[in-house]
Amino acid sequence: MSKKQKKPVKPKARLPKGLRDVYGAEVRAMQAMVEKVRRVYELYGFEPLITPALEYTDALGKFLPDVDRPNAGVFSLQDEDGQWMSLRYDLTAPLARYVAQNFDALPKPFRRYQSGQVWRNEKPGPGRYRQFEQFDADTVGAPPGAADAEMCMMMADCMEALGIARGDYLIRINNRKLLDAVLEKIGVDAAPDNPQRLIVLRAMDKLDRLGPDAVRALLGKGRKDESGDYTKGAELEAQAIETAMAFVSAGAASHDETLTRLQELVSGSPVGEAGIAELRRMSALFEAANYGSDRVVFDPSIVRGLDYYTGPVFEAELTFEARNEDGEITRFGSVGGGGRYDGLVARFKGQPVPATGISLGLSRLYAALLALGKLESASLAAPVIVLVMDKDEMAGYQAMAHELRAAGIRAEVYMGGSGMRAQMKYADRRGAPAVVIEGGDEREKGEVTIKDLVLGAQKSKEITDNEEWRSGQAAQVSVARKDLVAQIRKILEQNR
Amino acid sequence: MSKKQKKPVKPKARLPKGLRDVYGAEVRAMQAMVEKVRRVYELYGFEPLITPALEYTDALGKFLPDVDRPNAGVFSLQDEDGQWMSLRYDLTAPLARYVAQNFDALPKPFRRYQSGQVWRNEKPGPGRYRQFEQFDADTVGAPPGAADAEMCMMMADCMEALGIARGDYLIRINNRKLLDAVLEKIGVDAAPDNPQRLIVLRAMDKLDRLGPDAVRALLGKGRKDESGDYTKGAELEAQAIETAMAFVSAGAASHDETLTRLQELVSGSPVGEAGIAELRRMSALFEAANYGSDRVVFDPSIVRGLDYYTGPVFEAELTFEARNEDGEITRFGSVGGGGRYDGLVARFKGQPVPATGISLGLSRLYAALLALGKLESASLAAPVIVLVMDKDEMAGYQAMAHELRAAGIRAEVYMGGSGMRAQMKYADRRGAPAVVIEGGDEREKGEVTIKDLVLGAQKSKEITDNEEWRSGQAAQVSVARKDLVAQIRKILEQNR
Repeated sequence: MSKKQKKPVKPKARLPKGLRDVYGAEVRAMQAMVEKVRRVYELYGFEPLITPALEYTDALGKFLPDVDRPNAGVFSLQDEDGQWMSLRYDLTAPLARYVAQNFDALPKPFRRYQSGQVWRNEKPGPGRYRQFEQFDADTVGAPPGAADAEMCMMMADCMEALGIARGDYLIRINNRKLLDAVLEKIGVDAAPDNPQRLIVLRAMDKLDRLGPDAVRALLGKGRKDESGDYTKGAELEAQAIETAMAFVSAGAASHDETLTRLQELVSGSPVGEAGIAELRRMSALFEAANYGSDRVVFDPSIVRGLDYYTGPVFEAELTFEARNEDGEITRFGSVGGGGRYDGLVARFKGQPVPATGISLGLSRLYAALLALGKLESASLAAPVIVLVMDKDEMAGYQAMAHELRAAGIRAEVYMGGSGMRAQMKYADRRGAPAVVIEGGDEREKGEVTIKDLVLGAQKSKEITDNEEWRSGQAAQVSVARKDLVAQIRKILEQNR
Repeated sequence: MSKKQKKPVKPKARLPKGLRDVYGAEVRAMQAMVEKVRRVYELYGFEPLITPALEYTDALGKFLPDVDRPNAGVFSLQDEDGQWMSLRYDLTAPLARYVAQNFDALPKPFRRYQSGQVWRNEKPGPGRYRQFEQFDADTVGAPPGAADAEMCMMMADCMEALGIARGDYLIRINNRKLLDAVLEKIGVDAAPDNPQRLIVLRAMDKLDRLGPDAVRALLGKGRKDESGDYTKGAELEAQAIETAMAFVSAGAASHDETLTRLQELVSGSPVGEAGIAELRRMSALFEAANYGSDRVVFDPSIVRGLDYYTGPVFEAELTFEARNEDGEITRFGSVGGGGRYDGLVARFKGQPVPATGISLGLSRLYAALLALGKLESASLAAPVIVLVMDKDEMAGYQAMAHELRAAGIRAEVYMGGSGMRAQMKYADRRGAPAVVIEGGDEREKGEVTIKDLVLGAQKSKEITDNEEWRSGQAAQVSVARKDLVAQIRKILEQNR
């Protein structure tokens, strides 16, 4: 951290790795998505909260165990008084801080939603950024059962509000209490920092991607993958491996069947029985509300990465296939998830405050909706460009743009310093539907010329007569100055 | 930066100073404001951009001169490879980086808008936070004149779109070139790091707040303010002070008169003449578009803090008076501004790229709109609460909430673990318009009881008969279960 660095005279315009800019249509599409999810969260009675990006590192629970340094996975810096602050890595830890800080003033349960950027100081990769946007909803102060079921149903509602059809997504549900019961049965210490426990959970989490043989290997001696890399296994005995495999493979067609199988597998374990009871309460509510196995399923192979979960955990998965940038068929996989975290507010309060919540990954959902072709509605017509034929007539051009805007039509006067050719190129790059031209001739006649650029592009493919093309008359029309707005409106309607 | 800090066992739930949370109605009001400004920017043809919060410090131009350390005014940290990154302190420096980085791919002029948080590592104070939201629009690649005039008119349009009436705001305009000309005339070196220059500019900027006598003192020996604090003056000679005073006081009733006076004051200075010519071009466009002195004025006392401005500068000022939290009458003052910065992209490119833009301070605008009583439209009805009289009937309660939501009514089932009394208190704290009650009696009869909490609150003021009040019948009605939605809708309409 003490490396010296020379300040360059002319800095290079670049971003730190793993960060990116988002422009134009993608921003609009994200905004439209946020609106749709917000509408669902609002209908369910959640209220909006905005917390700042920086928090004290200790309030986020991101000091490394036994040392006084922030976890390397978060971006951290020291305030003037030497206290460590970090950029939030999720929206749940700041919520816990907010609830603890304002506990007496808040209605309980406290139901809030928040959309915002989060930062992870991790190695970036394809589609993995160090800043990304999440959209969360949480209920703090609600015992297990109904509040968790509500989260799962609301997550399903969000998928459909975003245009993802039933059958193209699934909400998968498990319970950390069941995982604890299985670990107990196979003799693995359930302490969060036990490395063997992590290896077992990671192996179980991979059933969907790698299949049962690979998981079996990872629970035992280990496994060499296709690239030749060797992953160390959990070194479980054969009997323990079979118990774990029976558990992760217990998913069945109906909620009831899955829960009955799981109950047999954890019977005799108090924590396991408690976990089953929670899932049964959720199952009854799903059934009553008609959220069947086409929307929510119990899946014992779901683990979820974060350590703070204490009960039911959920994952929203997209199940349809799409081609990636390289043309390969892939599944999008997880686009969100959540679970119950009864210990997070308790860290501050010293008294138990049960809580549950979900988080949707908006960037991944954007990529999925793009692949599904569900983003059209977010598009917005590009502006009409009023060309500047004569710099002394700027006021007149500005009046044209003003009239168009007053009619609700996006419009701008060309603001650069270049000539006609560059102005047409500009209109083209902006995707303008039309340009407005008023030179000396038009002004004398009280007219304007309007080029329909959409029709023009079509005609340029069809036209064989070079003369007609070069004369540029193919898709342009002159109208009286007073008819400018009406003519533009006509063109926009034709091109819709 | 090396102070050691013990990690507490039970962390305190708190925020670093100068940071704050925003909840509920204020978040909604801010969202509604963003939408209104966005609509104006979109109509003018600007496209949205989102840049990340972290940038390389050198790309933001925030290394201190002659040392290899970031400016203390920004939040900075080092990446793994030792390079300094900082949280952006405005949205203009990241735009300059983006344009330089993508120069060839962008349409020019490049017109973008961006709303986002910015961070300042400065001493916080009342109403001064270390994170706040700005909403910018910029045109990069546009010569002085029309593009600057457009920014001023668009800023006026934004004020009115936000509900601030004409007469309650003013866009004040000056030109850094005129300030340079005046500095030249009074013999002050115009180098940006000349301390005397800063003292002179700061003094001129205070005409509005402190009046001419105080400015005169600050241009000369210095001044003791009401609190007894002494501010060192610029030590100008009497003749220089009179020249500077004549300049800052040159504002007149009409655009033309002001510009004529200013022209006399800077005559003979090439940079001054250039500045006047730019303002004259803007004035002609204001006149043609009918943006008179009730919306835009030329005001030679406007300076604007940022060092990167090179031409016209603008400030949006609220001119009405309101009472602050302590009941004192105050003016809101500046809620945004901007100007021309022809050197910012050039820093990267080594070739001139003229640019101009504006930035609106959304938090200050929110405070102003609150004082004006213009925020009602952003309110949203609180949810209807379905009470849980019998935990085994959760599915039935959930079905009620579901029906209400399907009718577009915000609704939630009580998710806590407490009894009737706590549930009613919860509904009250949430501001619920009504609660739905279905106990054993109602269920047997196929009915639900609905308490109208708005009417109930009114009646509780009127009722003199204790018996009637205690029986709780004042504002409640029982209806057939199938009429739940219709009855709630009726109550919401009555209470509108």
